[in-house]
Amino acid sequence: MFAEKELLLVPGPTPIPPQVQRAMVRAVINHRSPAYEELFARLQEKLRRIFAVTGEVFVFPASGTGMLEAMVVNFLSPNDPVLMVSVGWFGDRFGEIAERFGAKVTWLKVEWGKAATPELVAEAMDKAPQPFKAVLLTHNETSTAVVNPVREIAKVVKERGALLLVDSVSGFGAMPLPMDEWRIDAVATASQKALMTPPGIGLVAVREAAWEAVKQAQMPRYYWDFRLAREFQRRHQNPYTPPVTLLFGLDAALDLIFAEGVETVFERHRRLRNLLRDGIREMGLELFVPDDAIASCSLTAIKVPEGIHGGDLIRQLRQRYRVEVAGGQEHLRGKIIRISHMGWVHESDILLALTALRHALQDLGWRAR
Amino acid sequence: MFAEKELLLVPGPTPIPPQVQRAMVRAVINHRSPAYEELFARLQEKLRRIFAVTGEVFVFPASGTGMLEAMVVNFLSPNDPVLMVSVGWFGDRFGEIAERFGAKVTWLKVEWGKAATPELVAEAMDKAPQPFKAVLLTHNETSTAVVNPVREIAKVVKERGALLLVDSVSGFGAMPLPMDEWRIDAVATASQKALMTPPGIGLVAVREAAWEAVKQAQMPRYYWDFRLAREFQRRHQNPYTPPVTLLFGLDAALDLIFAEGVETVFERHRRLRNLLRDGIREMGLELFVPDDAIASCSLTAIKVPEGIHGGDLIRQLRQRYRVEVAGGQEHLRGKIIRISHMGWVHESDILLALTALRHALQDLGWRAR
Repeated sequence: MFAEKELLLVPGPTPIPPQVQRAMVRAVINHRSPAYEELFARLQEKLRRIFAVTGEVFVFPASGTGMLEAMVVNFLSPNDPVLMVSVGWFGDRFGEIAERFGAKVTWLKVEWGKAATPELVAEAMDKAPQPFKAVLLTHNETSTAVVNPVREIAKVVKERGALLLVDSVSGFGAMPLPMDEWRIDAVATASQKALMTPPGIGLVAVREAAWEAVKQAQMPRYYWDFRLAREFQRRHQNPYTPPVTLLFGLDAALDLIFAEGVETVFERHRRLRNLLRDGIREMGLELFVPDDAIASCSLTAIKVPEGIHGGDLIRQLRQRYRVEVAGGQEHLRGKIIRISHMGWVHESDILLALTALRHALQDLGWRAR
Repeated sequence: MFAEKELLLVPGPTPIPPQVQRAMVRAVINHRSPAYEELFARLQEKLRRIFAVTGEVFVFPASGTGMLEAMVVNFLSPNDPVLMVSVGWFGDRFGEIAERFGAKVTWLKVEWGKAATPELVAEAMDKAPQPFKAVLLTHNETSTAVVNPVREIAKVVKERGALLLVDSVSGFGAMPLPMDEWRIDAVATASQKALMTPPGIGLVAVREAAWEAVKQAQMPRYYWDFRLAREFQRRHQNPYTPPVTLLFGLDAALDLIFAEGVETVFERHRRLRNLLRDGIREMGLELFVPDDAIASCSLTAIKVPEGIHGGDLIRQLRQRYRVEVAGGQEHLRGKIIRISHMGWVHESDILLALTALRHALQDLGWRAR
């Protein structure tokens, strides 16, 4: 009876606004019809606007991981030297994919819970025996709830003439990332995060200035081929069947974002983060990322108090209070929980999350200071 | 006002039953939760049942083309000799993908509108300078509305020890393809065809006996990697975020198919095909595939009468009668129209399609015999 009473605060999929849900109930249409071309033309404009890019925004039936692979195979050639700026578990996929496809990956490893810095990136680039073709960077690291200073790192990378490819799967739409202004060559994200749409749409934006690199890349590709996608997108179509009902949803979700105002959406995410972080501190709990300057605005990681297992806490929150949050990965498993505030999330949700967290901890024997 | 009055008879996306549409309106759930694991376990069972396979059915956020790429990179290694049985435009993608990834593809070309035969395949395999690692075969060719005799070809291929990889994107669910019984190593399809679900889910079934080949394959892969997918599927999860709302839909769609009975669904498709073909002949129009023995049960191609352009006919059907059909590809552009009868299609839809076709042709100046 209460299954759909759930407050979904995991870092994707995120809650779907009813306006978006209703938009997806429309009957499916032929993706080779004028009705689809009209939808897709409109969507392309909105996407270029939200990515703040002159260039293409490619839309694939895929998850975020697929979009990381798409960037790898469309920008790189086997044996290309690339720098992977590693700050956590999710971002590392990007480097692993590049390795699988034969790039020579140098790993710049930053301790989990910390952000990369422009100085570290500059140093790694300057001491490399040969110039890197590309730098692979995570905008928002979902496993640690850290945000990287992309703007400053972009400056360093572009001064040194490398491509900058950014995984912003869990950051895009929650925090600024103006592509043209910051000179980011490509950004990947997916529908089920701050874009408030069910999972199934992968997105990659490519700056016009980076297109030459796509033409030169030699990695084997068919499904992800941006060259083919660009040909089709110019006539407002896709090379193969797009997820039309999800695109109906994305179209409606972007309208909601523009109606609120993109800058206002960013501010809301920052405000929700602050509300959550203040509440956590007041409760006497510890934040996994104490430094506000690098704390993500799309999700927050909280240390689970000693003596309690994160898995039990997540179960208690789910079963008794119907608040769904995420745990930690790898060595953080059981040690942190992660609460998302990306997308269709409101102050009231954060208040419920905080009070449910307090109750669930108390249920498990924890006593507030 | 009448936008959703449309009768969608293109070979994908196909019409969505209201039961499936309603199932997808459920709130999105966490894909790392017991609720999802329960859904996915149930879905895996249903999928194994409909593929009639002992083995795995992989579920990807993707289109059918993605699933062709998935078969190529999970079964083949660069320089592997493979035979592409080419009977039309869509099936040929499979061979093109294999070439892009470095396989050595031999093309067995059959005239468009004809089917491949076991004899042709046997001959091509026997005269090859080195044994083929795999045969790539289209079950149902969407560009010509021809169905290949997969059962008989499978016998020939398996006797010669090659892998048989089948593109059944537009055939699966409409015509029999029991994998274990026919010894087909892998079959790819997608949600938006006979499976009556919106586009966005790609499916590949792999027979248990073919798993060794997956382990030996050397093509670069990450997103499509069946080894990783298998690890996750064993605990009823996916390596990355699955398209959960579409999976709600697929779950409901499979229930509808099992309720009707899989064999009854096949019979219905055959009956609809016959009804349509009889009506076309009675009207004095020509079928692109005159031979009933190789005429697809999932869609039918009809020659556009001389003096009329296919594009005009499609527009007239769309604008005046709200019946949406497809045109021809390549040299068949403007010369044929294709009417799908796959998925949620009923006798009444075929009757409307036939009468709307007659009216649209008359509008364009055609007079029936």
